[in-house]
Amino acid sequence: MDATRIKEFAAEFDPQPFHLDETAAEASIFKGLAASGWHTAAVAMRLLVTGGLPLADGLIGFGGEISWPRPTRPGDVLHVESEVVEIRPSRSKPNQGIVTIQGTMLNQNGDAVYLLTAKLLVSRRTT
Amino acid sequence: MDATRIKEFAAEFDPQPFHLDETAAEASIFKGLAASGWHTAAVAMRLLVTGGLPLADGLIGFGGEISWPRPTRPGDVLHVESEVVEIRPSRSKPNQGIVTIQGTMLNQNGDAVYLLTAKLLVSRRTT
Repeated sequence: MDATRIKEFAAEFDPQPFHLDETAAEASIFKGLAASGWHTAAVAMRLLVTGGLPLADGLIGFGGEISWPRPTRPGDVLHVESEVVEIRPSRSKPNQGIVTIQGTMLNQNGDAVYLLTAKLLVSRRTT
Repeated sequence: MDATRIKEFAAEFDPQPFHLDETAAEASIFKGLAASGWHTAAVAMRLLVTGGLPLADGLIGFGGEISWPRPTRPGDVLHVESEVVEIRPSRSKPNQGIVTIQGTMLNQNGDAVYLLTAKLLVSRRTT
């Protein structure tokens, strides 16, 4: 995570002082510059997509649960660990299925900064 | 939503063909260029922050649930409707509370494109 990109992302999508300015961030609950949680979420998506979770149609989510147990900071080096926790046929569409994945993004100290449980749409193999 | 910004966001955070290229998107389940769901989520955050939900400390979320009932498209004009659904004291920190908000982002046709239920950290008033 890079301080300049943290501030740029925040200026576009989450213009709050603790994401935009070091001094204001020091005085906030974050006690220092913190990335927008949506920036963190977007970086996790990049890691999931470029990490190559092997789904033929790509990663097409229709929803999920997210949490940010701690902020991400300038200089943080992040990686994602993900797991498929459920695969089931769609009830309404016989050619589709739903894959549930759980992902955890960790920083360089091994602390979880972002948790994601997402439901993904997949095509069913034709038999 | 702007086609150029949709592709730029996707190139940085969600580089999948249906978010990057009109022709590839036509051939995908989206049947046309669609914004990354994380781009959609980030735009909703901008609308929530700039719309001025009246929380003294800003919008500091620690988690929530999200869903994307339909894609957002180039040319879409989006707005968010939000509601405070719960306010409760923190169990562990007497000076803090948790506000739950529900937000719905709609396009120009009144179709919901994004649903968010988020838990926000707030300071309790000193009595």
